[in-house]
Amino acid sequence: MHTTLHSEQHFEASATVRDVVIGMSDGLTVPFALAAGLTGTMAATSKLVVIAGLAEIAAGSIAMGLGGYLAARTDRDHYESERQREIRETVELPEKETDEVADVFRGYGMSEEDLQPVVKAICADQKRWVDFMMRFELGFDEPDPARARNSAITIALSYIAGGMVPLTPYMLSANIFTGLSFSAAVTLIALFVFGYVKGKLTGIAPLRGGLQTVVIGGLASAAAFGLARLIS
Amino acid sequence: MHTTLHSEQHFEASATVRDVVIGMSDGLTVPFALAAGLTGTMAATSKLVVIAGLAEIAAGSIAMGLGGYLAARTDRDHYESERQREIRETVELPEKETDEVADVFRGYGMSEEDLQPVVKAICADQKRWVDFMMRFELGFDEPDPARARNSAITIALSYIAGGMVPLTPYMLSANIFTGLSFSAAVTLIALFVFGYVKGKLTGIAPLRGGLQTVVIGGLASAAAFGLARLIS
Repeated sequence: MHTTLHSEQHFEASATVRDVVIGMSDGLTVPFALAAGLTGTMAATSKLVVIAGLAEIAAGSIAMGLGGYLAARTDRDHYESERQREIRETVELPEKETDEVADVFRGYGMSEEDLQPVVKAICADQKRWVDFMMRFELGFDEPDPARARNSAITIALSYIAGGMVPLTPYMLSANIFTGLSFSAAVTLIALFVFGYVKGKLTGIAPLRGGLQTVVIGGLASAAAFGLARLIS
Repeated sequence: MHTTLHSEQHFEASATVRDVVIGMSDGLTVPFALAAGLTGTMAATSKLVVIAGLAEIAAGSIAMGLGGYLAARTDRDHYESERQREIRETVELPEKETDEVADVFRGYGMSEEDLQPVVKAICADQKRWVDFMMRFELGFDEPDPARARNSAITIALSYIAGGMVPLTPYMLSANIFTGLSFSAAVTLIALFVFGYVKGKLTGIAPLRGGLQTVVIGGLASAAAFGLARLIS
């Protein structure tokens, strides 16, 4: 059905964009902020910053990836359990459920006379009836079964890709402060480009999108740096 | 309207639960894994682990909180731009849009004769028409305006609350390995309780939920520890 296809493509694309955004914005920001924070302490060496950064990327990508997996699974389980409840209700409380279908159309200002054939057509078939309640009364779309796995992989890879950007300069620099300078320059540019592209994809102003991600990265690393300085 | 209220409460609750889950699962996991990873290196002292952990919590809570804020804002902007497009289309392509309303009902097996009065009633009012297309054709629910701010605060506080659990033992222990032992014990218990409660709230088996979060935390910290050992 054309309508359903349209709606699903729409959703699938924005779900993947959302996963890349979730993974990459944290991946670019947290290892960057952590590395900058550690550079501000007395004990730091380039090697220690790289170790801490890589440990963070490993932990963060696994935690966020599996977290995304479970969130998608939870959505799906939730959908299934709500669906089972609706199926039970069409059997146990058919009058109430029929009236809830009518309520949806009453909300659109239809007369009782006009809505009777619609309600009758929908409630004539149990699957159709439950589908209608799920989507139109409760606002659920049926989740894609491959969603959880795809979501996990997308989030984890985006996190790793993002995290290597701020860390690479520390690996290549002999001096830790040279590492910090290059890391900050490269990461702030990457954050801007990421926010700009994200803005384009999601339909907000690209320049605003770019500045937003730069500000987030800047705030997070300033907080990390400040806190590390304060207690070291 | 009762129907709308029901559906919105439903959504609002699961959105908040989702935010707590997003913030707390990472907050419990990433600082835990980072601290465990650093303990495995030569250079580590309790103080350094605490500094790195607190820097990570500051960075992670800000990055995830603001990330959640922007994600909710992006959803809202996306909703608004799609809505504007639908409004334009009802003016510029009224026949096509009218037919798309009819398509929704054709999908429910209604006859052409039965669906005419329904379609006519919906398309008689532009706001109602656009509302119908947004929800029933495109599957959008109107986002709550306070969502972005609430989402940011919920995610950030959940991250901080989660992150202090694995870090506190290192603050209280003179010896770093004592810190690690207590941190692992306390955090694995907290991960289990968190997963158990999350399971109860989201309707999945609590025991399975508890084991899942323990496995995620274990995998993330094993990866961080292994990587840190490997390169130190």
